Amino acid sequence: MADAITPRAEDYSRWYVDVVRQAKLADYSPVRGCMIIRPHGYALWENMQRSLDDMFKATGHENAYFPLFIPQSFLAREAEHVEGFAKECAVITHSRLEVDEETGGLRPAPDAKLEENLIVRPTSETIIWDAYSRWIQSWRDLPIKINQWANVVRWEMRTRLFLRTMEFLWQEGHTAHATKQEALDETRLILELYADFAENYMALPVVKGTKTASERFAGAVDTLCIEALMQDGKALQAGTSHFLGQNFSKAFNCQFQNRENELEYAWSTSWGVSTRLVGALVMAHSDDSGLVLPPKLAPIQVAIVPIHRGDDDKATVLEAAGAIADEFRDRGIRTRLDDREGFRPGWKFAEHELQGVPLRIAIGPRDVKNGTVELAQRNTADKQTVPREGIADRIVSALESVQKSMFSNALAFRESNTHHVDDYDSFKEVIEGGGFVYAHWDGTDETEARIKEETKATIRCIPLDAPDEAGKDLVTGAPSARRVLFARAY
Amino acid sequence: MADAITPRAEDYSRWYVDVVRQAKLADYSPVRGCMIIRPHGYALWENMQRSLDDMFKATGHENAYFPLFIPQSFLAREAEHVEGFAKECAVITHSRLEVDEETGGLRPAPDAKLEENLIVRPTSETIIWDAYSRWIQSWRDLPIKINQWANVVRWEMRTRLFLRTMEFLWQEGHTAHATKQEALDETRLILELYADFAENYMALPVVKGTKTASERFAGAVDTLCIEALMQDGKALQAGTSHFLGQNFSKAFNCQFQNRENELEYAWSTSWGVSTRLVGALVMAHSDDSGLVLPPKLAPIQVAIVPIHRGDDDKATVLEAAGAIADEFRDRGIRTRLDDREGFRPGWKFAEHELQGVPLRIAIGPRDVKNGTVELAQRNTADKQTVPREGIADRIVSALESVQKSMFSNALAFRESNTHHVDDYDSFKEVIEGGGFVYAHWDGTDETEARIKEETKATIRCIPLDAPDEAGKDLVTGAPSARRVLFARAY
Repeated sequence: MADAITPRAEDYSRWYVDVVRQAKLADYSPVRGCMIIRPHGYALWENMQRSLDDMFKATGHENAYFPLFIPQSFLAREAEHVEGFAKECAVITHSRLEVDEETGGLRPAPDAKLEENLIVRPTSETIIWDAYSRWIQSWRDLPIKINQWANVVRWEMRTRLFLRTMEFLWQEGHTAHATKQEALDETRLILELYADFAENYMALPVVKGTKTASERFAGAVDTLCIEALMQDGKALQAGTSHFLGQNFSKAFNCQFQNRENELEYAWSTSWGVSTRLVGALVMAHSDDSGLVLPPKLAPIQVAIVPIHRGDDDKATVLEAAGAIADEFRDRGIRTRLDDREGFRPGWKFAEHELQGVPLRIAIGPRDVKNGTVELAQRNTADKQTVPREGIADRIVSALESVQKSMFSNALAFRESNTHHVDDYDSFKEVIEGGGFVYAHWDGTDETEARIKEETKATIRCIPLDAPDEAGKDLVTGAPSARRVLFARAY
Repeated sequence: MADAITPRAEDYSRWYVDVVRQAKLADYSPVRGCMIIRPHGYALWENMQRSLDDMFKATGHENAYFPLFIPQSFLAREAEHVEGFAKECAVITHSRLEVDEETGGLRPAPDAKLEENLIVRPTSETIIWDAYSRWIQSWRDLPIKINQWANVVRWEMRTRLFLRTMEFLWQEGHTAHATKQEALDETRLILELYADFAENYMALPVVKGTKTASERFAGAVDTLCIEALMQDGKALQAGTSHFLGQNFSKAFNCQFQNRENELEYAWSTSWGVSTRLVGALVMAHSDDSGLVLPPKLAPIQVAIVPIHRGDDDKATVLEAAGAIADEFRDRGIRTRLDDREGFRPGWKFAEHELQGVPLRIAIGPRDVKNGTVELAQRNTADKQTVPREGIADRIVSALESVQKSMFSNALAFRESNTHHVDDYDSFKEVIEGGGFVYAHWDGTDETEARIKEETKATIRCIPLDAPDEAGKDLVTGAPSARRVLFARAY
């Protein structure tokens, strides 16, 4: 059915790409750096979207949609923002193609050159704050808490399916508030929401923290993030929530009359997660046989495979399998009754395994007679014969327990790959083996840059929950009050 | 709260834009032709999406996502397709901006000029058939029934919020089949699905038909469509389903081994509806006080406005209103308890009216004492005092009856604006007054073009259910076997 998957131990990067492509999550496209998200990958993203969207709405956010194109001049309005994004953007210069008489091919029509170039949004702060400056007059118009689900483009040189692509899908929240405190609270609320999603839906433990100045979003006063550890010991940033202060309201002259009747610039936040999370999910849980998916996000939670030889068996087995499928669907379990003709059961098993279906039920004539089914669990490879009676209850509780055990396993993996280091030599040695490293840092850009240069490790974040602990910087020996989190990262 | 809405009778176009902007469905953006879909408009679109998506999935379709960018050369592969789309596309020529030393502004970096220009997808047949040609080897790989929810860009010169915008949101289905008949069946299945959605969700009666050659999708063998009549007597195309034959499989060399072990080109369809439907919804049902929305799609189905004067009343009234809201939500009714402080009830009433909330409940201290509430219905402006007891049942059935009566009203409007005409002079006179006109046509491009030129009316479709009826062409007198549907259109 599928080509062999390169084992993780042999080549983790190839293993990742093999799993993504063979499980049909995504494929390459003829446009360098742009990927095709195939139905199985998109169904996973849809489940992520649905869960996150419910969380956003439950906390008072609304969805909207802003234009794909941004006038070139808008980028330049916020000094750091342009610095961060002008280097990697798709520039639209013409509005029409025409036949090139010389070559017979197409070319941009010279008379359709735009007066002002447009860029494809790399993120939407500028176009959104232009609108907010028209919508916000008074404190009564605040807060505005808008989210959008959209595609964005950043001209990345080295791309990788899901993890880093030129075009990606994401959600970007953009909020405007009357006070600084409200905006700070929002930034934090979203960080907690992201952490909740990562841990309770993706089964992925995360460290919550603040980015250092050099890792901050271009235009933010402060960037909060969640950081997760992948199976190869590298860190992956899984979501960011930015406190933007008044940077964009000033750049777009968005002032409002506050409760004291004074003009004030609005306070803002922005925050996002992307299809990168699909990559994180693969990297965190999958194995050499393919995908392993947490039940809460799996497009199919249980596959039912009827097994029959003769035509006599067939009707009986299909009927029994169908009745189980109906029972599951009534309980809200996402079920696939895999009664495809012309494929052997073993082939189907391998496909469900490859695609990460958490639970699989096989039922044959003997099972029907004995009142049993065979239940297989993807993440542990356990297989057992269980009673047909009460099977739906068993599945509901098995899905819950798989979800929990995937989280505990990921947490145990992270704990056993987390180190506390106090001198630079040990740091260099430990970082070589991968994992999270907590160490003291003197707070300067210079030291951070030197460590990155010499070890390829970056400060993933200044953890929010790190205890006060006096120490000395790894490199300079300067005093430090708390440890920060280092790792090599995606 | 809002500026006055221009009455329909005075200026229908201005009325439309006033309603869209004042009901906060959409706003203009600084990029000409690109609109901002505001939360109320987006919530409406989300409800449309959810309903359509469920229908697609129930008929075996899966969602996926293909790249935003298409290599310029792809467009040229299908001769009619390039003819149709090269004239109006956004061309990306550079991947970086840099500071222009002379002006201090930004410019595309000359060394970041692309080897091959990319265009922003106006539709995705080409990029998708490039992928299908890699995915399809055998009849076992068929059918592929994929849909995507995406943004597309067509460089329109004259734009109008929702109805015609440079960027719009839509869904585009792209299917591949082993036989011609299967593809034809799919084209028809989707047409029926669109008609079902238009009539039963949007409360919008439609005529199903086939486009003439000149109105066909660029690259299609046949285009089926649904056509609706707006309040100003103009037609609006509300959805199209194309039978593409083997045009794109040939252009992208997508051959498969059929059951007879012969190589054959795959058969295909594509189909779409867009945010244009939001404009159709406004134009079909709304009035001089603002939006009128069908309950099945309304973001808020019932608004509850508590009315109190003193602080004594307040607690009692709010408690009663809250209890009603809880009861409604338990029944799955999309409910807004409008307990905003600082706004008078009359102001709230006007806002709910403007935004098209189908039902409104007001409750004051006297109502609480009497066990009543006031129930107002948006589409008829009826108001009555009804018992508090059993209010949820009453609302559920009122929502159903509003949905039905909106459809019957729209149908009655269409019937009274549908004409059968047999000579060209009458045609010219009747078409001037708007509406649908059934007339005979000789089937030639020339006659069609002449009628369009002279009357601005186009053939909206050759209706699927038109009875056989011998007649003579309006203009040439040549024989015709069935009437076709003419109208001036959006």
